[in-house]
Amino acid sequence: MLIHDNFLLSNDTAQKLYHEFAKNLPIIDYHCHLSPKQIAEDINFDNITQPWLHGDHYKWRALRTNGIEEKYITGDASDWDKFRHWAQTVPYTLRNPLYHWTHLELNKPFGIKKLLNPNTAKEIWDECNAKLQTPEFSCKGMIRQANVEIICTTDDPVDTLEWHRMIKDSGFETKVLPTWRADKALGIDTGKYFIDYLDKLSKASGIEITNYATLMEALQNRQDFFEQMGCKLSDHGLDRFYCDDYTQDEIEAIFNKALNKEDLSNKEISKYRSAVLYNLAVMDHNKGWAQQFHVGVIRNNNTKMFNQIGPDTGFDSIADDLVAKDMSKFFNRLATEDKLTKTILYNLNPSHNEVYATMIGNFQDGSIAGKIQWGSGWWFLDQKDGMEKQMNALSNLGLLSRFVGMLTDSRSFLSYSRHEYFRRILCNLLGQDVENGLIPNDMDLLKEYVEGICYKNAKNYLNF
Amino acid sequence: MLIHDNFLLSNDTAQKLYHEFAKNLPIIDYHCHLSPKQIAEDINFDNITQPWLHGDHYKWRALRTNGIEEKYITGDASDWDKFRHWAQTVPYTLRNPLYHWTHLELNKPFGIKKLLNPNTAKEIWDECNAKLQTPEFSCKGMIRQANVEIICTTDDPVDTLEWHRMIKDSGFETKVLPTWRADKALGIDTGKYFIDYLDKLSKASGIEITNYATLMEALQNRQDFFEQMGCKLSDHGLDRFYCDDYTQDEIEAIFNKALNKEDLSNKEISKYRSAVLYNLAVMDHNKGWAQQFHVGVIRNNNTKMFNQIGPDTGFDSIADDLVAKDMSKFFNRLATEDKLTKTILYNLNPSHNEVYATMIGNFQDGSIAGKIQWGSGWWFLDQKDGMEKQMNALSNLGLLSRFVGMLTDSRSFLSYSRHEYFRRILCNLLGQDVENGLIPNDMDLLKEYVEGICYKNAKNYLNF
Amino acid sequence: MLIHDNFLLSNDTAQKLYHEFAKNLPIIDYHCHLSPKQIAEDINFDNITQPWLHGDHYKWRALRTNGIEEKYITGDASDWDKFRHWAQTVPYTLRNPLYHWTHLELNKPFGIKKLLNPNTAKEIWDECNAKLQTPEFSCKGMIRQANVEIICTTDDPVDTLEWHRMIKDSGFETKVLPTWRADKALGIDTGKYFIDYLDKLSKASGIEITNYATLMEALQNRQDFFEQMGCKLSDHGLDRFYCDDYTQDEIEAIFNKALNKEDLSNKEISKYRSAVLYNLAVMDHNKGWAQQFHVGVIRNNNTKMFNQIGPDTGFDSIADDLVAKDMSKFFNRLATEDKLTKTILYNLNPSHNEVYATMIGNFQDGSIAGKIQWGSGWWFLDQKDGMEKQMNALSNLGLLSRFVGMLTDSRSFLSYSRHEYFRRILCNLLGQDVENGLIPNDMDLLKEYVEGICYKNAKNYLNF
Repeated sequence: MLIHDNFLLSNDTAQKLYHEFAKNLPIIDYHCHLSPKQIAEDINFDNITQPWLHGDHYKWRALRTNGIEEKYITGDASDWDKFRHWAQTVPYTLRNPLYHWTHLELNKPFGIKKLLNPNTAKEIWDECNAKLQTPEFSCKGMIRQANVEIICTTDDPVDTLEWHRMIKDSGFETKVLPTWRADKALGIDTGKYFIDYLDKLSKASGIEITNYATLMEALQNRQDFFEQMGCKLSDHGLDRFYCDDYTQDEIEAIFNKALNKEDLSNKEISKYRSAVLYNLAVMDHNKGWAQQFHVGVIRNNNTKMFNQIGPDTGFDSIADDLVAKDMSKFFNRLATEDKLTKTILYNLNPSHNEVYATMIGNFQDGSIAGKIQWGSGWWFLDQKDGMEKQMNALSNLGLLSRFVGMLTDSRSFLSYSRHEYFRRILCNLLGQDVENGLIPNDMDLLKEYVEGICYKNAKNYLNF
Repeated sequence: MLIHDNFLLSNDTAQKLYHEFAKNLPIIDYHCHLSPKQIAEDINFDNITQPWLHGDHYKWRALRTNGIEEKYITGDASDWDKFRHWAQTVPYTLRNPLYHWTHLELNKPFGIKKLLNPNTAKEIWDECNAKLQTPEFSCKGMIRQANVEIICTTDDPVDTLEWHRMIKDSGFETKVLPTWRADKALGIDTGKYFIDYLDKLSKASGIEITNYATLMEALQNRQDFFEQMGCKLSDHGLDRFYCDDYTQDEIEAIFNKALNKEDLSNKEISKYRSAVLYNLAVMDHNKGWAQQFHVGVIRNNNTKMFNQIGPDTGFDSIADDLVAKDMSKFFNRLATEDKLTKTILYNLNPSHNEVYATMIGNFQDGSIAGKIQWGSGWWFLDQKDGMEKQMNALSNLGLLSRFVGMLTDSRSFLSYSRHEYFRRILCNLLGQDVENGLIPNDMDLLKEYVEGICYKNAKNYLNF
Repeated sequence: MLIHDNFLLSNDTAQKLYHEFAKNLPIIDYHCHLSPKQIAEDINFDNITQPWLHGDHYKWRALRTNGIEEKYITGDASDWDKFRHWAQTVPYTLRNPLYHWTHLELNKPFGIKKLLNPNTAKEIWDECNAKLQTPEFSCKGMIRQANVEIICTTDDPVDTLEWHRMIKDSGFETKVLPTWRADKALGIDTGKYFIDYLDKLSKASGIEITNYATLMEALQNRQDFFEQMGCKLSDHGLDRFYCDDYTQDEIEAIFNKALNKEDLSNKEISKYRSAVLYNLAVMDHNKGWAQQFHVGVIRNNNTKMFNQIGPDTGFDSIADDLVAKDMSKFFNRLATEDKLTKTILYNLNPSHNEVYATMIGNFQDGSIAGKIQWGSGWWFLDQKDGMEKQMNALSNLGLLSRFVGMLTDSRSFLSYSRHEYFRRILCNLLGQDVENGLIPNDMDLLKEYVEGICYKNAKNYLNF
């Protein structure tokens, strides 16, 4: 059996840490891409392909690599046909996290211990689909089964957050909170899309955006609304940090050019983004929120496929741009002005791990433990090796004890077992260190570590 | 005994995988630098220094680091003197791959289990030299002993491939095929050498090269000839990818300047190379060949030694230039034009591993499994740690199952034990994962993995 | 018990190597930042906070990360208050090297086996402070206890080295030698500080500095004096290598502008530094010294804290600038002119490990074993994981056997247990390899490795 009680737990101490301290803790999933609409409507999926294969670009990449036609991936093949191609591909994913994720998810919530392959495909398909029709497997049902205390979705400033309100009003025992993600306000280079976005933002805020100052007012209006709706976090998806020097007059002039649909130079775009990013960070500081930065991806590398099926379809990869100096300058400005709020940094290139792990140390100010966080292994790094490297580098160069731990970053209701995965990996690291004599066998202290990293640190850090 | 049946195989499963599935598979050495002339002439070497120390810049670096005078490395010392200095150095190479390679090669084909050091130098020298005079130790004899099914050498477009023809005509049971390596056509910055090369290419093709268009015609002519001679692969040695925007007129003008021996700017050189590299890739696509790219070395760092003893003498090192964006742009153009053929990418800097491992995923198109490959640990990385890191990153970010596996990249007939080394390392990784409960103990599936990665994947991928 | 006889020694061979060959070797600490004044005056510290927490920016970073107020770190809190906040923080540093260092240092020299935490803080404070008043715990006493044969401090060319003379005259059995660190001569961009420095250098040398040529004369004068005082090593702290092309006239003109307090362009600064760095390297070559380069830190990332408490206070981090090409060009010039002396390179970003490990190979010239060294894990990398990665990369890409091993790089008299830490880690690596069958169980050879790397290599290399 692949997934069993002591999966990944290689010694007695690891097993004890997991089973006694980690296993039963609630989940705080402080960053994900779940659909609040699906939660609010509490839908049941027709079949396992819908929550599992529609929209999962990790699986799509594996399918393409395995020589499967696009028709069976994002095309018009039936859900069963898509499922059986996935079942055919799974045995070729040994050592890839998809192999573990797949079977962790079949195990929980479905209770299926069988390995997925062409021989088991039909019975697993039937069993999953039957369960998916039951109340325990509605969206809320799956969240309940996973013992999730808090979910933070990812939302645009123009969003009405009506689904969040509906979820709250429904008395759902899991808090589902919005996260402020204003990336589109940085998209001054997107022409018509930018103008359209400003229009939506004007309407949502009731503030007509005629210049940079009114843009900021409109964003502030929406941020106030997000705060009322329980938001505690922002998030930014960036190719790199922006921290050019600029004057307020320059920014107004650049913004005006964009409104007039004039062409902008790269330098102007960069200055504009530097201003917005700074102002957003100050707004986060004013609210006392935690800000997140996801940095270092090259998106949409395959133009042919982008034109066919759009973004977020499995054609993104790890960037290698230099990061240290820009990141330092950005946070130094905020720190020096006393406007640096709690911050979580996520990197995609593991060869930058040590740069990030030491960068956070420059801005710890003693006000709260772990004020500046280096986030858990992101995207391609959200797997055993990636998580271990992140936790090892964080341990060596910072304080693991203050780490806010795991998040799913997922679009799927079936991804909660990634928290189980993380907890097993964490307990195994600590258990190995105990048994190798590297850290003391002090169960009270280790309990504090495990409970902190799996649950309490995030809860305290984010003021939940 | 250092080299024994279970060398590197740390548990029962690893041993079973190696001995039952891997050990006896034939070798497909799809990239090396063996001399087809030496194979065709089927020479016997006079002594072990000739195939082992003449031309092996890995050993030369170790000798210099160990404080040995150049006279005993590349100088005029006798072969015995060179051998005994190597024997003196070997005990100082513990933990370096040279220590393992040396003893793997003494073990196979020589059957020598002793460790090489000053005390054993003379007897090992005598025993090797005696064996080297026998038919089993001619060039073909050593290839036969190693159970090599296919060898792909590395050849210039102007090469007559007469030795390949002679080998084929001799009925040698190992196929020895040429590989197309047109790097010199990129060398527009080498002045007289470039002009001389164009002259040779004109003669070889019978097409007078008077402009860029006729250069391409001449290359096409030679590529057709290589195809007739059984070529299935190209190779490119690059400092970086070239993917500048250019017009055909610009390229003709740049080429014309080079013909007239006018100076070229860096920008012109870069545009020219972008054009040639693109055209070569399209030619590969038209033939349905696999193209290889070896990227990321700083060559000839030591000008003093370069002036004394030339290139490829042990003065090269790992580069750290950024690679992701250029590589993405290069392959995106080809993919978007439907002109991207099967591709194998090799990197030299292991901190780029994850960039390469994710880059290949952007261009998998479902047409064949593993269409875009990330090649096995190259040059400095062709050792246990380097291979393990490559296979781990490939596993985590792609599909190990579809990997085309090992190649020697060697100039020596004694390097075939590097396939044994690779196979032991692979089987050990899989065996450890089984015994740690990370992958299922499914011997049928593991057999498919081992046989695929050691032999069948390369055979299928390259249409042998 | 955390620290015991076999701490970090995971098998019998490792234990044998450490206890029989490594443990009792004297220490050669060829690079540190100890105060020669404190040694000469042979002071006793009032309490453990003074040598342990005053000046230790590693601990300061951990304290800030743990949410401790600056008052208790660098502020005006009492030494006891600072100590108890450290004691409170220690349990939150599991897996960070501070946890091991802290308990290694309590074990030696204090003989305290208890773990530091709030419950043990008072008794440990009392016990340490009592011992610190005894002759065995004076500065010289602690050096004696640690069995230190040679100490190389870090000194400016203008330093009188009077304390070094006093130590020598006192007949202290440990040699305390100066190291030449002329970084301030590179600081042409520091305006008034640079002019003041030239003034000091004029006075110290008796040579009035009126142009670049007299600057070099003054430096040569001081270097001669350092040599008389037993100096064998230089050191350079660099953000990056400088190797611009320049003419001597250009350098004189740039220097003249600096003397006249005119603004300098970045290009001028870079050219000037290229010249000074080259000239310093040639001076090192002329003396037959070993030169050290510490490269790759971003200093003073937090301007607010820099303005409050100055440099070297825990606000530095790992840089990611590209390094290979500049480093190659710099050393190539020296090698080609036969002016490259023994060299030790230290990198801060572990993703550059393989670049450094291969770069040194380009300049080994067979004159002495290990002429160009890649230094042990530096600063943030001076911990188990960092040292293991450095030794593994060095092993794979060079010759571990010729490594000059550990140095403390410390400002504290309590840091000598870092040599113990290093030796345990080294013996464990070798012991594991023996027990895994990767290297032969040849105790004579392993003894040579262990004794060489822990003591003899440095002694021979530095001509002590």
